[in-house]
Amino acid sequence: MKKNVLYAQSGGVTTVINCSMYGVIKAAMRSEKIDRVFGAKNGVSGLLQEELVDLSKESQETIEMLKYTPSAALGSCRRKLKSEDDFNRLFDVFKAHNIGYFLYNGGNDSMDTAMKIHKKAQEIGYDLKVIGIPKTVDNDLMFTDHCPGYPSSAKYTALSIFEATLDVKAMSHDSTKVFVMESMGRHAGWIAASSALLKNSDDEGPHIILFPERIFNKDRFLSKVEDVVRRFGYCSIVVSEGIKDENGNFVSDTGMVDNFGNKQLGGVGFQISNIIKNDLNLKVHTALPDYLQRSSRHISSLVDVQEAIAVGMKAVEFALNGESGYMVTIERLSNEPYIWTVGKVELDKVANKTRELPDDFIDEEGFMVTDKFREYALPLIQGEDNIDRWKVPNHYSRLHWNMVEKKLPKF
Amino acid sequence: MKKNVLYAQSGGVTTVINCSMYGVIKAAMRSEKIDRVFGAKNGVSGLLQEELVDLSKESQETIEMLKYTPSAALGSCRRKLKSEDDFNRLFDVFKAHNIGYFLYNGGNDSMDTAMKIHKKAQEIGYDLKVIGIPKTVDNDLMFTDHCPGYPSSAKYTALSIFEATLDVKAMSHDSTKVFVMESMGRHAGWIAASSALLKNSDDEGPHIILFPERIFNKDRFLSKVEDVVRRFGYCSIVVSEGIKDENGNFVSDTGMVDNFGNKQLGGVGFQISNIIKNDLNLKVHTALPDYLQRSSRHISSLVDVQEAIAVGMKAVEFALNGESGYMVTIERLSNEPYIWTVGKVELDKVANKTRELPDDFIDEEGFMVTDKFREYALPLIQGEDNIDRWKVPNHYSRLHWNMVEKKLPKF
Repeated sequence: MKKNVLYAQSGGVTTVINCSMYGVIKAAMRSEKIDRVFGAKNGVSGLLQEELVDLSKESQETIEMLKYTPSAALGSCRRKLKSEDDFNRLFDVFKAHNIGYFLYNGGNDSMDTAMKIHKKAQEIGYDLKVIGIPKTVDNDLMFTDHCPGYPSSAKYTALSIFEATLDVKAMSHDSTKVFVMESMGRHAGWIAASSALLKNSDDEGPHIILFPERIFNKDRFLSKVEDVVRRFGYCSIVVSEGIKDENGNFVSDTGMVDNFGNKQLGGVGFQISNIIKNDLNLKVHTALPDYLQRSSRHISSLVDVQEAIAVGMKAVEFALNGESGYMVTIERLSNEPYIWTVGKVELDKVANKTRELPDDFIDEEGFMVTDKFREYALPLIQGEDNIDRWKVPNHYSRLHWNMVEKKLPKF
Repeated sequence: MKKNVLYAQSGGVTTVINCSMYGVIKAAMRSEKIDRVFGAKNGVSGLLQEELVDLSKESQETIEMLKYTPSAALGSCRRKLKSEDDFNRLFDVFKAHNIGYFLYNGGNDSMDTAMKIHKKAQEIGYDLKVIGIPKTVDNDLMFTDHCPGYPSSAKYTALSIFEATLDVKAMSHDSTKVFVMESMGRHAGWIAASSALLKNSDDEGPHIILFPERIFNKDRFLSKVEDVVRRFGYCSIVVSEGIKDENGNFVSDTGMVDNFGNKQLGGVGFQISNIIKNDLNLKVHTALPDYLQRSSRHISSLVDVQEAIAVGMKAVEFALNGESGYMVTIERLSNEPYIWTVGKVELDKVANKTRELPDDFIDEEGFMVTDKFREYALPLIQGEDNIDRWKVPNHYSRLHWNMVEKKLPKF
């Protein structure tokens, strides 16, 4: 008997999560084993409310434009499945809509959710194939060479700091001497590290990267800033939102936590700028790209787009082959030329785990990446696959929200 | 007798000021009347110090790459000519280096400087042709249809808010409800206005633009935010750094002034976000692109690149024709198809003046642009002329700094 696929998106967005959605729809719709492709509105949140969209009814154009649409077209969520009630309800929905395949596109929190659903299915003997599709600009999932979304954020970050460094350089004669850009990366410095990907000489920016993997020491930092300004006349700095001091406290800690217990960070760039202003009396400019950094589809890398589509397609293939409880991974076969393929790993190996920057990706002084990091990251940001939004009518994907009729009582 | 050209850059940078530099060098080097093309390091600051670069000695590659190099390759300055001593020194430098043509690339402060130099030359009977070349992302120069640099910042702003709005839309189910992006524009809302250039329907971002041309009223603003969130579930806001309250005070006023007496602004985006958090209890994300907004060469418009080159070339042509005391302007001949040409205006008409957004470019409610603005701005952001920095070796212009031998005592 044919079954339906259920696909959902979760957590912070990327520029290419909708490319994975495209991959899922494409692969699912050409399979004989699959009846319809459903999407859950707002991840498990909508799933619990039985808010399913029939993606099989979408127009070809809407599906094609998913490739050029940043963020999460289905809506995302930060909801955690909390109780037995949640899980029971989820399976009521699966049963009511003949769901045989559940594909969850997210980061390490979402892989935990996917793992629990997989285990519950086994426990209650419901035939469900659960596959996780990786996605996070933070690049902190284990057992995959990298995560879709990261290459594009890396490219954005490298280009932005390159361009802004030329700006502060020009202004440094009698105005701004220091430029500070805050980057995302709660627990790992992958995005911050990527800022060095256009740097080919000492004078080029960034001059200093503050990694969450290294303890922030104010005196060492200020003396480094002084040294850079003395040598070049200006200084360009990238600071990861997640840096901590000697006591393990976030340098910027607003005290708020999200539903997963993660601390809500923000503003560390301004704290760093204030330290420089107060202690060194230099004029500082501060940039906080925030969401721009993870939704800048206009500068996404071609590699990222291709890989994001591939992990979506392969998730369907794995599920159809009867596999369950895995996350799709990207495996690097060769660096030059860059050759990759798609593999898989057990969900419980990646759930709730964080992959930090390896020690040999950060240099001894602790303020810059090594060539080893460059070799790792440079192949990922190559190429572009963009559209001119002013030339293409209907230049992004607007779902028609063909909602599937509800069959269950309210939850 | 052949004379030398002196070209200098001043004020805040843009992505295409070096395109104008390219235009100047190209036009000057093919003229029989011109001996050498000098650049002043850091605008009038370097000029006073007799710090001249012989651009005629630059390699062809370095000159070509100027087109793809954001910021000001010669270095900029915010120095104001203050005293008779300054002016006398300037002309000592002109005389010592046989300068017959002075081309100053900047905004309205710089046009004031250029005008004063022009008048001083007439006063002392020194044969100098002075031409101003317009440049400012703020787009606030009078008597030119628009200013080189603005179209590219406009394009960056429109794309960034479009992409980030899709982000907050996806997150709004159980996380961020409001996204606030601060834009440049000290006295005029041109950049803030440009954020609407990809908006085609009510639900698309931005939903609210705060213009410096409209008084900021907290209650009206909050009620608008509430209304948008009620209708769409989320709200995307662009706020110009220069907005003022009922009493004419900048909503964000750090109390610092630059050398021209301009107030140094910053942080208004966070103030707006805090108001929303405190009064409406909504989760807000805030972005401050800062320098990224005026150095994002990767998304510069082709029109902007072409026009910036043209105003540089025409500045040389006007000067060679014996004209002095003018700023080059861009004249729009037709909107569809967009056809432009280059004209000129007396410097004293543009010096120190600010062109605000016309009343009919802002709608009645005061939170959005009109179709008239869209008709004005859309032609300017079309096309791209980009390079892949990871594919092109020496992907930006690094001057060789062939300094001209000093002939004067220190100043």
